[in-house]
Amino acid sequence: MADLPFDLADVRLAAAAWSRIVESPDPAAGALVAELGPGAALDWLCTVADGRHDAGDPRWRQAVERWAPRLHRLDVRRELDVLDRLGGTLVVPGDERWPGGLDDLGAERPFALWIRGDPAVLRRRGVAVVGARAATSYGQHVAAELAGGIAEAGLSVVSGGAYGIDASAHRGALAVDGTTTAFLAGGIDRLYPAGNAALLESVAKAGAVASEVPPGSVPTRNRFLARNRLIAAISASTVVVEAAWRSGALSTAGHAAALSRPVGAVPGPVTSMASAGCHRLMREQSAVCVTDAQEALELAGGAGEHLPDGRAAPLGLLDGLDQVASRVLDALPARGSAPVANVARAAGLSVAEVRSALGRLDLDGRVGRDGSRWRRRRGQS
Amino acid sequence: MADLPFDLADVRLAAAAWSRIVESPDPAAGALVAELGPGAALDWLCTVADGRHDAGDPRWRQAVERWAPRLHRLDVRRELDVLDRLGGTLVVPGDERWPGGLDDLGAERPFALWIRGDPAVLRRRGVAVVGARAATSYGQHVAAELAGGIAEAGLSVVSGGAYGIDASAHRGALAVDGTTTAFLAGGIDRLYPAGNAALLESVAKAGAVASEVPPGSVPTRNRFLARNRLIAAISASTVVVEAAWRSGALSTAGHAAALSRPVGAVPGPVTSMASAGCHRLMREQSAVCVTDAQEALELAGGAGEHLPDGRAAPLGLLDGLDQVASRVLDALPARGSAPVANVARAAGLSVAEVRSALGRLDLDGRVGRDGSRWRRRRGQS
Repeated sequence: MADLPFDLADVRLAAAAWSRIVESPDPAAGALVAELGPGAALDWLCTVADGRHDAGDPRWRQAVERWAPRLHRLDVRRELDVLDRLGGTLVVPGDERWPGGLDDLGAERPFALWIRGDPAVLRRRGVAVVGARAATSYGQHVAAELAGGIAEAGLSVVSGGAYGIDASAHRGALAVDGTTTAFLAGGIDRLYPAGNAALLESVAKAGAVASEVPPGSVPTRNRFLARNRLIAAISASTVVVEAAWRSGALSTAGHAAALSRPVGAVPGPVTSMASAGCHRLMREQSAVCVTDAQEALELAGGAGEHLPDGRAAPLGLLDGLDQVASRVLDALPARGSAPVANVARAAGLSVAEVRSALGRLDLDGRVGRDGSRWRRRRGQS
Repeated sequence: MADLPFDLADVRLAAAAWSRIVESPDPAAGALVAELGPGAALDWLCTVADGRHDAGDPRWRQAVERWAPRLHRLDVRRELDVLDRLGGTLVVPGDERWPGGLDDLGAERPFALWIRGDPAVLRRRGVAVVGARAATSYGQHVAAELAGGIAEAGLSVVSGGAYGIDASAHRGALAVDGTTTAFLAGGIDRLYPAGNAALLESVAKAGAVASEVPPGSVPTRNRFLARNRLIAAISASTVVVEAAWRSGALSTAGHAAALSRPVGAVPGPVTSMASAGCHRLMREQSAVCVTDAQEALELAGGAGEHLPDGRAAPLGLLDGLDQVASRVLDALPARGSAPVANVARAAGLSVAEVRSALGRLDLDGRVGRDGSRWRRRRGQS
């Protein structure tokens, strides 16, 4: 079975073949390819699979048995033809276009990325915005707002192309002409789910749609879970917008945490099951509470420093007053005026302290005097 | 001015007098009374205030000047008469009914507590449930739910008697015939705010209404802030339900944190300004995200251990399956059946692994075989 109809010395072809042979993540395959390079590793696999060579360690023999079924009629040139027809790009480790963040996955690093759109987008600093398919309108609104703010700051919004939060995140980035990347669980020739096909076409135009499995691969449940590690690894941080108590989005957060990437979670009503997973992340995984794009950017590493902080509230009456002055102001009658001795008694302060505080409050225009009596100025209620 | 119309050797009267003289918190007064006892401290104050004795250190002189104005016509027996007419109780430090949690306030410990209702309630393990006056219906709902669960577990719900979250917390405890305590900023003869008077009467009947200031005292802004330290100190933990970015409820949380009491915050929609302070507590003060009564009780120290956990979700298809078995199940066609070799290729596993996994799945009733072909069992989609 073993002789393959393409040149094993072609690193791109060999890497593409590994992305076809192995069901990720498979650390044994990752270690083998990292050690020998994809071509030599494939050659070794072929010679062992057809009995010309012994695997040695029984664990390697077991691994070969796992990989061998897919050597049958393996011709990755067909997948590359499909990629060409889609105008796509294959990027493999060692390529200057390879996103370095994925290297942190070690032996679980993908063998190749099949990309529609601009591969350079994958190397841009990104924030993963992920969450439940069964999202509420609240969650979708917040995801779009977050993604819009992240994209406006020049970062890429990374997500999984699914219904619900993922779709809102991609849309939020597109709405501000930002860049966004969708990692698919299946091949990039099948834009899944079908209902998001038009959205994913737009993502591919403005950013990139990427997968570690070749065109033609179906999106299985396990591939969805495996795909989540790519979203986590390629992003500087991961923010979960809505997630049920058990949710695939939590696996992305788990991968991010395992990679020491910061994890954020957007709170929501405790009465909403769609936010239960986010609250769980905050309680059990020390996820940071994220309420707006600025906080998501802070999580990604200070990139939000230049954003305006719109939250400075107007100073209330007691702000900026020392405690003695605030007590004196408190002790002045709401209407009319009072002598210093009465104010002192009401405030529980000495006459000297009250006189000194009234002087400062007078300078600030907060109080006025009528002979020996003091009153609040209008508006200082 | 100095000779007072009551016996300074009566610790209760002397402590009550200090609660009238001092505007809390006043650490100098707290230290003086702790050092000399309330009677001797009051005697010292009188002799210094009328010039028979020198204060010594200028800071003490300054303190005496702060306290002296309220020695004028001080007769705490009138306040005690009001307390008697209300059927209330005065509890002072050293009394066996004194709630020990307040001692953690050190020099800011109150001099006395003026109580309507059962003083024993104040010694019961309690959880503070506090929040904004300008609460949303969401916040009020959650506050009542939390308080109900806390009270059902036998703990007391502590709050401030205000409109909004506080009122909902008291009501939630009363609704399950639980105990609850309201700490007022003014005297317990004026149930403030007036709109909550009937509620506070009920609190006094089922629990307690307490204040550190004597009857007749008006609830000033500074007294609201000072009162918050009592709520924090008497409670095992503090949970903030809704709070604006700047909110008095945050001061209660600050006191709790300063006393090393755990602080919880209930999340809400990030689009709700009423939850902004809660999210801020989680981000900036490491407040724990609290979503239900059980979590509030855990915060108060394991008291929730015996509550049923209603959150165990039904096991989904992939739960409890090892990763190999789940990949095999994934690889079986949705309809019809497939031979082992095809399943192995689809799953990216060896034939041996697939056979072994199918055997286990067969025993679990998740797959069935048709001769040499395997299929999913009905319902295992």
